[in-house]
Amino acid sequence: MLRIITQRTEARTELRRICDRTHDDQVFHKEATVREVLQAVKRQGDRALLHYTAEFDQQELKPEELRVSGSELDAAYQQVSKELLDAIRLAHKQIEAFHRQRVPKSWVQFGEDDVVLGKRYTPVDRAGLYVPGGRGAYPSTVLMNAVPAMVAQVPRIAIVTPPGPEKTVNPAVLVAAQEAGVQEIYRVGGAQAIAALAFGTETIPKVDVITGPGNIYVTLAKKLVYGTVGIDSLAGPSEVLVIADETANPVFIAADLLAQAEHDPMAAAILITTDSSLALKVVAEVEQQLIDHPRRTLTEKAIAHYGLIIVVDSLETAAELSNEFAPEHLELEVEDPWALIDHIRHAGAIFLGSSTPEAVGDYLAGPNHTLPTSGSARYASPLGVETFMKHSSLIQYSPTALQKVSEAVDVLATAEGLSSHADSVRLRTKPKQIDSES
Amino acid sequence: MLRIITQRTEARTELRRICDRTHDDQVFHKEATVREVLQAVKRQGDRALLHYTAEFDQQELKPEELRVSGSELDAAYQQVSKELLDAIRLAHKQIEAFHRQRVPKSWVQFGEDDVVLGKRYTPVDRAGLYVPGGRGAYPSTVLMNAVPAMVAQVPRIAIVTPPGPEKTVNPAVLVAAQEAGVQEIYRVGGAQAIAALAFGTETIPKVDVITGPGNIYVTLAKKLVYGTVGIDSLAGPSEVLVIADETANPVFIAADLLAQAEHDPMAAAILITTDSSLALKVVAEVEQQLIDHPRRTLTEKAIAHYGLIIVVDSLETAAELSNEFAPEHLELEVEDPWALIDHIRHAGAIFLGSSTPEAVGDYLAGPNHTLPTSGSARYASPLGVETFMKHSSLIQYSPTALQKVSEAVDVLATAEGLSSHADSVRLRTKPKQIDSES
Repeated sequence: MLRIITQRTEARTELRRICDRTHDDQVFHKEATVREVLQAVKRQGDRALLHYTAEFDQQELKPEELRVSGSELDAAYQQVSKELLDAIRLAHKQIEAFHRQRVPKSWVQFGEDDVVLGKRYTPVDRAGLYVPGGRGAYPSTVLMNAVPAMVAQVPRIAIVTPPGPEKTVNPAVLVAAQEAGVQEIYRVGGAQAIAALAFGTETIPKVDVITGPGNIYVTLAKKLVYGTVGIDSLAGPSEVLVIADETANPVFIAADLLAQAEHDPMAAAILITTDSSLALKVVAEVEQQLIDHPRRTLTEKAIAHYGLIIVVDSLETAAELSNEFAPEHLELEVEDPWALIDHIRHAGAIFLGSSTPEAVGDYLAGPNHTLPTSGSARYASPLGVETFMKHSSLIQYSPTALQKVSEAVDVLATAEGLSSHADSVRLRTKPKQIDSES
Repeated sequence: MLRIITQRTEARTELRRICDRTHDDQVFHKEATVREVLQAVKRQGDRALLHYTAEFDQQELKPEELRVSGSELDAAYQQVSKELLDAIRLAHKQIEAFHRQRVPKSWVQFGEDDVVLGKRYTPVDRAGLYVPGGRGAYPSTVLMNAVPAMVAQVPRIAIVTPPGPEKTVNPAVLVAAQEAGVQEIYRVGGAQAIAALAFGTETIPKVDVITGPGNIYVTLAKKLVYGTVGIDSLAGPSEVLVIADETANPVFIAADLLAQAEHDPMAAAILITTDSSLALKVVAEVEQQLIDHPRRTLTEKAIAHYGLIIVVDSLETAAELSNEFAPEHLELEVEDPWALIDHIRHAGAIFLGSSTPEAVGDYLAGPNHTLPTSGSARYASPLGVETFMKHSSLIQYSPTALQKVSEAVDVLATAEGLSSHADSVRLRTKPKQIDSES
């Protein structure tokens, strides 16, 4: 059952506890296993992948089965319904349209004395996308990772996903990948898949950036290989924070809280409201909607441990508490959400008004659903086209421009004790000295 | 002495060895020490900071001495020359001007059926900047970190830097900080400083993002606290790669290679040229310029271990090898650098033409000098205003818009086995059901 808190200090303590739920020191114990997997894959390549796939996924693969074949890709289209295919296509269209907005563009700027400065944006050469598997099938994860990589024009994109029973990969995943334009899919998951993408094996190419959510082993592996490759973020369990006033509908809010809780027993679902009677109605409605819930046990566990209702005196206080929590998903179920938004400083995605359930953003509104979790919205952004691009600074000086700054460079280089830095300018700007030396 | 290689396979092997010089497994042994420091600071706060500062920096501080006082900040201006102050101000002006270009701006977009989508950019609340100290003084590092944080409008910015002899902080560092607008400076360095910024102590505030270069302990600490806070990158030793044709001046190139090598015995200095006679001249000129070099021993060590000249048959081949190395700094000392740039895919900063030594970018051209090292330019960008900002996605649907996508969301949520996701839309779009339940 959802608890209601009205006392501010207690609310802060509880929010802190929920936010820190994954920073548990216990995860360090799993690191030894993950390090071992990484080392094995680095040294033994495919052989280690097959070994761990047998051990962790109970699937005995041959090396040539690692990559999903062309005929499996074709067959997947026969295995999904027309409705699902249409839905995937609609989602793809809308996600692509959003991600095509404001893609970073190279620019140069011409200054005095023929100085040219600028930034040159380029995609990474290769990207590896992790798509969780096992019990679930996540075509939406495929789209949310593959579309920004495609929009960034990454030349080579590979997907890794753990095999299910009988070595299968869910057909909806295969269809979503193909709709997004990705044909290179490997049935391997866990830390071993991250290792394969980071180091390369005989079958799987080494990539430059790895993105996508996964369990704690996948996340630890991503943290360990960060620096060898780029990563999107360290994803924790999902969370929603709803800010609601007296105009909000308790039925909608209950459904939204449960939509978060049903992901994972570690998922967090928080309501902050100015209306104590709404709080009570939401508690009752959550109980009601849980009765026939297909994932009742798991969902109840999340609600019990990481569900919370806080009653506050004003929407400003609600925004302040929300900023401290820095939620992955923030719903503003209030009369005037645009007035409240100026008080919001940290959130992965903000859903405005009562007709915008998080689920619409999860699947097809267009913005990415891979968002910063566990308070990292304080400093991190949603996955995007930028995740698959980087830029180089451009600098061109003319002899005249260099002459003008040579004294200042000399002074600074000397202050930092770097004599060749000074020389590299001095030799260029005092031609006589060059003649005598060359 | 600089070696010359002409054989392609050998060149690739050597470039790989140089690129991987910091991915050495030995660093893992230092991790235990760093973990211990992090834990101690997390638990004991200031007390641990004072302990490690005494141990590693040989300075016995009292807690109230951690923060640099107002009178020290004032006094610093009396301790730097007029020329140095002017140079710092010129650098500040130009760095700021460049970083003010194309700062990310919030936007919204209005679609059909009153759908609103957008991105809202906000700065982080607090940033912590690491400035190396010890033997050297790096006012340029202060500017290159503080200016983008200021342009991003970060409300609170703190600098940490290890104390030198007699607890001093270099006055040029203190002046550069104040010129950039930062008054909050702590004399603490190493992993303990990173821990203080990540977890907070009695004196030092917990921040959201930590940036700035440091030694291997600082870098390991940043990697370990990544996820608790954001970081800019994992900086390795510096490197330059020069591509030169027969029009290049060997004196300039030698100075530029040495300007890199003088940083650190692990620094890398590579020339790829189409002109074998230029290669020989550069070898001789490097020897010549080393004779009276104030940091001769250190610089010779870097040249011997990580210096290299590769002679190739075409500039395209040079670009290809450079892309594989993905250098932090790339100089194009060729007749037509803009023609070559289309072949360059990965580099932190690109310096075009013979009047653009790297040093001009290191100090005052404007673009940031904190750049991706050790091959990470394959996926990472220079430090910038974006490092201190993040965005939230914005989504607003209308009842009509939600109605139109409700079927698709339902199909996708059902395919992923998430019933409350489906409910959260269904309950909003089928009013009768709501009435019966509320």
